[in-house]
Amino acid sequence: MDRNIVRLRERLAPLGVTLRPHLKTAKSVEVAQRVMGTPEGPATVSTLKEAEFFANAGVRDIIYAVGIAPWKLAKVIELRRRGVDLAVVLDTVEQAEAVAASSREAGDAIPALIEIDCDGHRSGVLPTDKDRLIEIGRVLESGGALRGVLTHAGGSYAARGEEALRRCAEEERRSVVDAAIILRDAGLPCPVVSIGSTPTAHHAMDLTGVTEVRAGVFVFFDLVMAGIGICRIDDIALSVLGTVIGHQRDKGWIVIDAGWMAMSQDRGTSKQAVNQGYGIVCDAGGRPYDDLILSDTNQEHGIIMVRPGSNASLPDLKIGDRVRVLPNHACATGAQHRSYHVVHGDSDIVQAKWQRFGGW
Amino acid sequence: MDRNIVRLRERLAPLGVTLRPHLKTAKSVEVAQRVMGTPEGPATVSTLKEAEFFANAGVRDIIYAVGIAPWKLAKVIELRRRGVDLAVVLDTVEQAEAVAASSREAGDAIPALIEIDCDGHRSGVLPTDKDRLIEIGRVLESGGALRGVLTHAGGSYAARGEEALRRCAEEERRSVVDAAIILRDAGLPCPVVSIGSTPTAHHAMDLTGVTEVRAGVFVFFDLVMAGIGICRIDDIALSVLGTVIGHQRDKGWIVIDAGWMAMSQDRGTSKQAVNQGYGIVCDAGGRPYDDLILSDTNQEHGIIMVRPGSNASLPDLKIGDRVRVLPNHACATGAQHRSYHVVHGDSDIVQAKWQRFGGW
Repeated sequence: MDRNIVRLRERLAPLGVTLRPHLKTAKSVEVAQRVMGTPEGPATVSTLKEAEFFANAGVRDIIYAVGIAPWKLAKVIELRRRGVDLAVVLDTVEQAEAVAASSREAGDAIPALIEIDCDGHRSGVLPTDKDRLIEIGRVLESGGALRGVLTHAGGSYAARGEEALRRCAEEERRSVVDAAIILRDAGLPCPVVSIGSTPTAHHAMDLTGVTEVRAGVFVFFDLVMAGIGICRIDDIALSVLGTVIGHQRDKGWIVIDAGWMAMSQDRGTSKQAVNQGYGIVCDAGGRPYDDLILSDTNQEHGIIMVRPGSNASLPDLKIGDRVRVLPNHACATGAQHRSYHVVHGDSDIVQAKWQRFGGW
Repeated sequence: MDRNIVRLRERLAPLGVTLRPHLKTAKSVEVAQRVMGTPEGPATVSTLKEAEFFANAGVRDIIYAVGIAPWKLAKVIELRRRGVDLAVVLDTVEQAEAVAASSREAGDAIPALIEIDCDGHRSGVLPTDKDRLIEIGRVLESGGALRGVLTHAGGSYAARGEEALRRCAEEERRSVVDAAIILRDAGLPCPVVSIGSTPTAHHAMDLTGVTEVRAGVFVFFDLVMAGIGICRIDDIALSVLGTVIGHQRDKGWIVIDAGWMAMSQDRGTSKQAVNQGYGIVCDAGGRPYDDLILSDTNQEHGIIMVRPGSNASLPDLKIGDRVRVLPNHACATGAQHRSYHVVHGDSDIVQAKWQRFGGW
C-alpha cells in the first residue's frame, strides 16, 4: 500500500497537479492519513456519511463527488458550519437552483463543481453543451459558488493497452479543460479543474490546464487493475484470509470458508483477457499458487479450482490450512469487511487493526 | 415479511417437520424473533459471529451450517459452555477427528451433523458413500456426538417449473434419509435429519423421515425467488430507497444515488428467463414501474432504464424524487446495509429501525 501511494505521488508531482485521493476505496481513517497530502486533505468522498466521518477525523477539504440531491444540502451546510470546505457536484440546472436557494437561505455559498461527461459512461454535461454549462454556472453564481469542473474517465476501465489508456487520459483532460474555457469565456470563475480515475492517473502524459487528480483504488490495487495493466499482481495490497474446510476430490475442488460475503460478487475480470473468477488464490504469505482461482462462491463457501485449460495441479491443501485470496475489485471486497488486519510483507503477524466504516 | 413467515410455517406444519430458519439472510435479532418458533430457536447460522450474536440475544438451539474448521472449535466450546446447544457440520474424517479430540479435551461432546451431498453443487458426503459415512460417524461417537445428517439442495436454484422443483425436494429428502438409514444400520445414532432450501421447502410434497427444514431467504424473498416461481414480486419484503440525482435523456437513463454499494453486485436473475439487471424499480410506495430496471451500477451511482425490447416509456422522475429498488438477492443486498428501516405496506413512515450485524 505504501509503495502504491508513493508511486502515484511521484508520477503526478512533475505534472504539476495535486492528488485528491478518493477515500471511498478504503473508508478508513488510517488509510486516509497515509494517502492524503496533509492530515486536512484534500480528499474525495462518495457519500455524505464518508464526508462526516472524515470531517470528524480532521479532514477539512472534501469534494463529495456524486451528484447532489437537494435534500442532502442540509447535511452539507451542517458540515460546512463545522469548518469543512465541502464542495458538491452537479450536472443539471435544477440541482444548481437547489444549491443557490440553500446557499442564500443558509447565508453560506456552497461551492459546486459542474460534472463533465468525458466518455458517455455515466453522468455529466457534454463539454460541447455550451448553453447548459453557462446556465448552470450563472445559476450557481447567483447563490452558491462555482468552484470549477470535474470529470471521471470511467470508460478507461474498458480500455486495453498503453496507447488506448493514454488516449483516455487525454480525452479526460481535454473535456474538462474545454469546459473550463467555456465558463471563463462567459466571465465565470473556474479555479478548479479536476480529473481522475486510477487508469488515467497512471497514464496521463500532459495535464496542462488541470489542477487536481482524483483516484481511489490505486491505494490497494486489485485484479481488475492488474488486468488492465496498471499494476502487477504483487502490488495488490488487499487480500481475504480463508480456511480450507473441505474437498470434493473427484471434481478437483477445494472448499474454503470465504464466499461472496467475504469477497463480494464483483466479477470485474470476467470480461478481461484473463477471467480470475472471484479471485486468485495464494498461500498464507501471499504467494499465488500456479493458476489457482476461487472459481465459485456461495454466501460463506468458496470453491477453489485450477483455472480451466491449465496443466497446473491442485496444491496439497489440508483441512484447516489458510489461504489468501486476491480480489477482483478492492472497493467492493473491502466493503464486505468491518476492519483491516494490517500485515507487513509475507508475515502473518497482525501489526494493527484499522476500522472501516460503511452505510450512508 | 410477516406473510412470508406464516406461509412457510403453514406449509410445513402438516408435513410434520420443524422449521429451523437460517438467520444469515437478515442477521437481525428482530427478524430472528419473528421467524423462529420460540425465542430460544431453533435456528441455523452461517458464521460463528452469528452464533455468538444470537446466543447473546437468548437463542439456545443453533446449527452452524458451514463445514467446521478445527481452529473454530474453541469458540464452539465457549458458546456451548454458555448454555447454547450449538452443533457443527462436517463431511470429512479429519474434521470428525478434530471434533472428537476437542470434545475429549473439553469434556463436552460437541454434536456434529454429517453433511450429505444431494445434488453435487457444493459440499458433503455422497449418500452412497457408505464407508465414509460410517467412518465419520464412528470417529464422532468416539469423542463428540453424532447428532444426525444434513443437506442443502442448492441445485434447486437452477430448477425451473413445479415438477423440477418437486423432484429436487424429493432428491434432497431421499439423500439424507438414505444416509440416516446407513448410519442407523451400522448401529450409530441419527436423531436429526435436516434438509433445506427455500425452493424445496416450498415444493416438498412428502417429508417422511425428515425431522427439520432449514430455509433463509423466504423471510424477505427476492427477484431470484420470483424468477424461479417461489413468490410473487409483491411478496418481496426488502427494497433499497434511492434518490434521483440526474438524467441522460438522450440515452434514456435516469441516474440515482443507489449503486452496487447499496444493491450488491448480485446478478442472480441474469441467467433466468427475465434478467432484472440490478433490480426492479418501484415508486416510493413500492409499486413497480412498467418494465423499469436498474440496468447498471457503479459504487454510488445507479442507472435506471426501460427493459430492452419493452415499449414502456421512462416515468417522469425529477431530481430529488425517491424510488425503491427490489433486489435480486435479499441475502446479498441486506449485507450491504447496517440496519433495516421498517415500513408497513406502501407507507413511507419508518415504524422501527432494526440493527443488522456483519463480519466474522
